[in-house]
Amino acid sequence: MAIIVQKYGGSSVGTPEKIKAVARSVVNKVEAGNKLVVVVSAMGDTTDNLIALAKKITENPDKRELDALLSTGEMRSCALLAMAIKDLGYDAVSYTAYQISIKTSGQYGKSLIDDIDEDKIKRALDNGKVVIAAGFQGVNTEGDVTTLGRGGSDTTAVAIAVKLNGTCEIYTDVDGIYSVDPREYKDAKKLDEIDYEEMLELSSLGARVMHSRSIELAQKYDIPVYVGLSNSDIRGTVIKGVDDMNLESKPVTGLATSDDDVAVTVRNIDNDINIIANLFEKVADKKINVDMISQTAPIDNKVNVSFTIPKEDLKECLSILKSYSKGKVQVDIDEDITKFSIVGIGMKTTSGVVAKMFKLFRQNNIAVKMITTSEIRITCAIKQKDKLKTINVIAREFNL
Amino acid sequence: MAIIVQKYGGSSVGTPEKIKAVARSVVNKVEAGNKLVVVVSAMGDTTDNLIALAKKITENPDKRELDALLSTGEMRSCALLAMAIKDLGYDAVSYTAYQISIKTSGQYGKSLIDDIDEDKIKRALDNGKVVIAAGFQGVNTEGDVTTLGRGGSDTTAVAIAVKLNGTCEIYTDVDGIYSVDPREYKDAKKLDEIDYEEMLELSSLGARVMHSRSIELAQKYDIPVYVGLSNSDIRGTVIKGVDDMNLESKPVTGLATSDDDVAVTVRNIDNDINIIANLFEKVADKKINVDMISQTAPIDNKVNVSFTIPKEDLKECLSILKSYSKGKVQVDIDEDITKFSIVGIGMKTTSGVVAKMFKLFRQNNIAVKMITTSEIRITCAIKQKDKLKTINVIAREFNL
Repeated sequence: MAIIVQKYGGSSVGTPEKIKAVARSVVNKVEAGNKLVVVVSAMGDTTDNLIALAKKITENPDKRELDALLSTGEMRSCALLAMAIKDLGYDAVSYTAYQISIKTSGQYGKSLIDDIDEDKIKRALDNGKVVIAAGFQGVNTEGDVTTLGRGGSDTTAVAIAVKLNGTCEIYTDVDGIYSVDPREYKDAKKLDEIDYEEMLELSSLGARVMHSRSIELAQKYDIPVYVGLSNSDIRGTVIKGVDDMNLESKPVTGLATSDDDVAVTVRNIDNDINIIANLFEKVADKKINVDMISQTAPIDNKVNVSFTIPKEDLKECLSILKSYSKGKVQVDIDEDITKFSIVGIGMKTTSGVVAKMFKLFRQNNIAVKMITTSEIRITCAIKQKDKLKTINVIAREFNL
Repeated sequence: MAIIVQKYGGSSVGTPEKIKAVARSVVNKVEAGNKLVVVVSAMGDTTDNLIALAKKITENPDKRELDALLSTGEMRSCALLAMAIKDLGYDAVSYTAYQISIKTSGQYGKSLIDDIDEDKIKRALDNGKVVIAAGFQGVNTEGDVTTLGRGGSDTTAVAIAVKLNGTCEIYTDVDGIYSVDPREYKDAKKLDEIDYEEMLELSSLGARVMHSRSIELAQKYDIPVYVGLSNSDIRGTVIKGVDDMNLESKPVTGLATSDDDVAVTVRNIDNDINIIANLFEKVADKKINVDMISQTAPIDNKVNVSFTIPKEDLKECLSILKSYSKGKVQVDIDEDITKFSIVGIGMKTTSGVVAKMFKLFRQNNIAVKMITTSEIRITCAIKQKDKLKTINVIAREFNL
């Protein structure tokens, strides 16, 4: 019997009626002869509501206690789903992170899964039970409850699929992965398949369908992941390895944009690798995620260094940069930034994608402020007002 | 340094503001040089709301899953209280039943505490932390979360006080233990002290101030328990052992009533101890709590057996009795029952209390349907319409 690990997001279990619908969907797969493990998120807006509740207690909730608080959301939806499945006449059991030893390490709020007690899950499956596992949570070596970060339930599901050598199905409120966000480009095409790398780039670039770490994990262990709607005949998207895919396909698979970053430029800094490296080390020490970096050619042994960071980290970054801002050195902020990225493993074998893109930008008066590239993606910082125009121009050109 | 185990009920932690008030109250005791362990219930009506939520999924929620669901309420209030204490600049840590190994046995929904890992609590206290422990929950030998029954947080608090050899303070929405429910008798007197046995009788008879098992546990290990309001100068009541109390005090300490029972009478049953014992065994097998029992003198070797049971168990009890109801044997139900009890360890040394009570009943036309007595209590089943009159007559006579 095949083992299927399903994950249902918060909107799929937002009400008792929806939980009962999930139960029926689970039972259908059991009836079809599969062993089911189901990972659930907290109901609806529970996590946001709990954060708001904590903020009423204190502006800066203790991180250990915040994790302890947030983890209860998933425990509730697990217990409720187990009840709903039992009510349909099938055996089920809910497990918290403690109960199946989801061992984590790292910081509160963004812990990593180290291991899971798959034997306990297997025993329950062998006893004919549907196993409902709490997503998003783990237990660290201190015995504290930790959470995996927003979207962490995806990672829980993939990790369990890895340990059980099962397949993984992520049910969410979108019917699959699109080449472009359909809210921003109405002709966006849904993809039947997408490569792990591509999905990973799109996720980290702003396509918020899945937790990036869940895709890394699936890639590492080559677990195919289906993403789609539950209880629906609409076919979703399978995220899987490149070996299974048609390499002759188009060079660009998808496009993603993000307005969550700001560009910081340090002007007239000494062109000294030690000084510049030291600056980035200090920023990294504060766990500020620097994305695009560019540096001008030196004039009088002075350079301008620009980089993008998440808007929410700007204040902390500026306090680090204060010590640099003296004499002719000057720190500028540009908040009018949209990160525009195209992704495709086809770029590995297709040349001229950058050239084609730049030609289109020139023809359409789209200014590029910064640019970075990797083997399978090109990211430009553009003006926010150019975002929709750029999406349309590029999506049409590359048939996304 | 003294170890104080405090317990705050659901109404004391019903809002973020109230949780912050509890935090200040806890910190005051820490400032005064004590080590504090705080047991909290779920916020406000959380438990009722969760039960209602489960009922929207299924009429009969699975008991294991219901316990898993309900236990999350206490986890939340624990984490929030720990945040609030840390926000005041004091160190604190929240612990679930898993984290301090509150080991339980017995049924879901009414488990008993077998043991607690006091070493982990002690280490945290020795490290200068306030320990916040989730009440009402435990973990059984299967590793399942279990709950202790309504009011179980009291028992958690006393159990921790026992293991730490500390004192126990129960903070609730009443300012102490009264001789009579003040809602039913406005001149009711608050008691400075009450004996364990008396409190136990009053609790099991309908005075819902504390979980009965918490009092049994406090008595067994001779832990004094203070009951009162938090953040208040109003003096509450200390529940403690008789050796410390004035035996020359009045014979009757308190009075309690309950409308939650129904009287069942089996008429014309054979006066055969085997048949009658077998009847009560069958009732006990279904965990139905039989309280008052009376039996008439035999006529033609037939007797009438009457007993009271909780109303909620009536349906199940009647299905057991069905097999007896044949020939002349007949089962009657009397739902117009108030259990009226007076309690006092003074009764051990004072005679004539029953006689005085019956005289007052006769003078005031109060009909007694059944009666049972123990060394320290007298319980009568009376008509519900006579309840308030009886309370007034008896409370005045015994100066309650």
